[in-house]
Amino acid sequence: MTETTTDMSDATAGVTPVGVAGAPGTGVVGEGVPAQGPGDGHEASEILAAARVCVDPELHEAVDSLPGHLRRVARYHFGWEHADGTPAAGSAGKAIRPALVLAAVQALGGEPATAVRAATAVELIHNFTLLHDDVMDRDATRRHRPTAWSVFGVTDAILVGDALQALAQRLLAEDPHPAAPAAAARLARCVVELCAGQHADCALEGRGPDEVTLDECLAMAEAKTGALLGCACALGALYAGGGPEEVDALDGFGREAGLAFQLIDDVIGIWGDPGHTGKPAGADLTARKKSLPVVAALASGTPAAAELAALYAGSPGKGSPGKGEGEGHEERDGELERVARAVERAGGRDWAQAHAADRMSRAVGQLARAVPDPEAAGGLLALAEFVTRRTQ
Amino acid sequence: MTETTTDMSDATAGVTPVGVAGAPGTGVVGEGVPAQGPGDGHEASEILAAARVCVDPELHEAVDSLPGHLRRVARYHFGWEHADGTPAAGSAGKAIRPALVLAAVQALGGEPATAVRAATAVELIHNFTLLHDDVMDRDATRRHRPTAWSVFGVTDAILVGDALQALAQRLLAEDPHPAAPAAAARLARCVVELCAGQHADCALEGRGPDEVTLDECLAMAEAKTGALLGCACALGALYAGGGPEEVDALDGFGREAGLAFQLIDDVIGIWGDPGHTGKPAGADLTARKKSLPVVAALASGTPAAAELAALYAGSPGKGSPGKGEGEGHEERDGELERVARAVERAGGRDWAQAHAADRMSRAVGQLARAVPDPEAAGGLLALAEFVTRRTQ
Repeated sequence: MTETTTDMSDATAGVTPVGVAGAPGTGVVGEGVPAQGPGDGHEASEILAAARVCVDPELHEAVDSLPGHLRRVARYHFGWEHADGTPAAGSAGKAIRPALVLAAVQALGGEPATAVRAATAVELIHNFTLLHDDVMDRDATRRHRPTAWSVFGVTDAILVGDALQALAQRLLAEDPHPAAPAAAARLARCVVELCAGQHADCALEGRGPDEVTLDECLAMAEAKTGALLGCACALGALYAGGGPEEVDALDGFGREAGLAFQLIDDVIGIWGDPGHTGKPAGADLTARKKSLPVVAALASGTPAAAELAALYAGSPGKGSPGKGEGEGHEERDGELERVARAVERAGGRDWAQAHAADRMSRAVGQLARAVPDPEAAGGLLALAEFVTRRTQ
Repeated sequence: MTETTTDMSDATAGVTPVGVAGAPGTGVVGEGVPAQGPGDGHEASEILAAARVCVDPELHEAVDSLPGHLRRVARYHFGWEHADGTPAAGSAGKAIRPALVLAAVQALGGEPATAVRAATAVELIHNFTLLHDDVMDRDATRRHRPTAWSVFGVTDAILVGDALQALAQRLLAEDPHPAAPAAAARLARCVVELCAGQHADCALEGRGPDEVTLDECLAMAEAKTGALLGCACALGALYAGGGPEEVDALDGFGREAGLAFQLIDDVIGIWGDPGHTGKPAGADLTARKKSLPVVAALASGTPAAAELAALYAGSPGKGSPGKGEGEGHEERDGELERVARAVERAGGRDWAQAHAADRMSRAVGQLARAVPDPEAAGGLLALAEFVTRRTQ
């Protein structure tokens, strides 16, 4: 699977250096953005922290309105409780999506405080998809902890996901803000797109590496990852009273930034640092995922592509994915290294980095359509930079 | 499992005679309702047919707005297509819930045509829960056809359920009717209650017959079955411009009628006619379901209760549930008959029938609070009668 299901805030928190484009130390935003300022990541972490503070009371209130056991499973999923119900100090992620909602309101001159319910609704939808995607993908860990289904069972994880979708819509239905109905409709449309993206992801996983096109994979990534980031920005625009053009432009901004994120996340899934990302280097290769750099490499027509196809056709390396202990460790590492080198020689890494930069450039263009003043656009740019930036 | 997942319209269409209360040929509504008129089932079938005609175009439009494969799975689930995508003449059920929405609008003097979107939204929510409940319960058939998950896989059934919930909320978010936001909030709260009911059902199934109280089972049935019927009526009241008392009274009417339905459905699950109900006689006993008559019987303190407990503690009868062919047929039938007789001798059948009548009486009382004019209340009464009535 590619990563709708990635909580990007965790995956990119303090990430390993991943060259994206341009000179070392600069992000992918490129021209027109100073090397220091919105792009230096400092402002982004403040924006994210502020969004978390804004949204958390509403999020807790919504989750705590769930009856008995559903509440307990949800509180576990959000990292607020351990499996036994005792309080946990864990983080529910870095609130990228709520931060995008609030920053979009601000970028268009609105009052972010009016959009806290909408920001919370987006976070609830994100978490509903995480719960369900983990069930479908049988993923065992999420945010460094066992997934809800693996602790409480598939039934409870499905039900709590269903309930979180309902809570999100309840928050918007109860919100007297005049933008709330349009936001609710847009969020509901987004859920359908997320479902289509997850279906496409699962369908692509079931096909051979030579039966998958790069365009299909990009379309899937847009639906799975870009759609909700775009929706978050669009909801912010609606709450700021933006017109259809501004709403669409901000949707486009979030989508393109989401694609850039996905490309970088896929690079991390091959060459990243497990200590920082929570995802072991090579995990996507071990699982024979058809991630974007791999599919680009396979489509390159190079000798390395043929070598990669042969390696991917073989059975996955020995040793459990994500573990490096026990027999087969060295053999597995050697095979993963061969696969990673083949992806790189076939141009998969360069393509992903260049394409991420291209997507970020498109994102910036969309943003400029709606928010020509760079000062006003600073918060959104900083967030987009954050999800795709190098670490210091 | 008890039956959220039952499509009551199918399960009770032309059901086998089941004595409920009162003299033969009368329904459970009891005093104040003429033996002919709203209670004779004739008007109900006209109301249901009219609701289906009202709702179907909106329902088709919503489902057909789904992208590609999700649309196909949804169309299969609704019985509009076969698994291979060719058109099917199947029925999507009898539209009890949409009919309740529209009848409630009419009972309070509103214009049913204004509530078609709300009625469609309720039908979408019902079908979302059917798709997910079938996954959780691993039920193989629904409306006499293989369930969506058994044809398309668990992932697609989960995703299409998710998408139907989103479609329901989209319809309400796009509805300019002034009651739409309150209806959306109420429907979202109902979804949380349905999830809690399904969780309770699964949790009760995992416990021993002597570890389950009748009150727990009744509370579960109210959440799983009563909540959405109540919500349907409440939405109708909202769309008719009803005040909080009328909305609550109609919610209560639907809940009580839903409980009455559940009790009768459980009676059918033990003594019903498979030819008519789609559920083979004894199916609930074969599966050792802790349905309401069984739990009432176990709690009776009679010698038959002890006998029943011993029978229920044993392994289920030979032969696959729902099938009567092959070896072990006679042995299975003999055992089922013993279990059914024990439930009856312990008073489980009489209790369920008396309690269904009591619930219907409460339903009628709630209805009278909001709609004192029997003429205006006729449509809702006819529908309530329909789902719990004897056949002719």
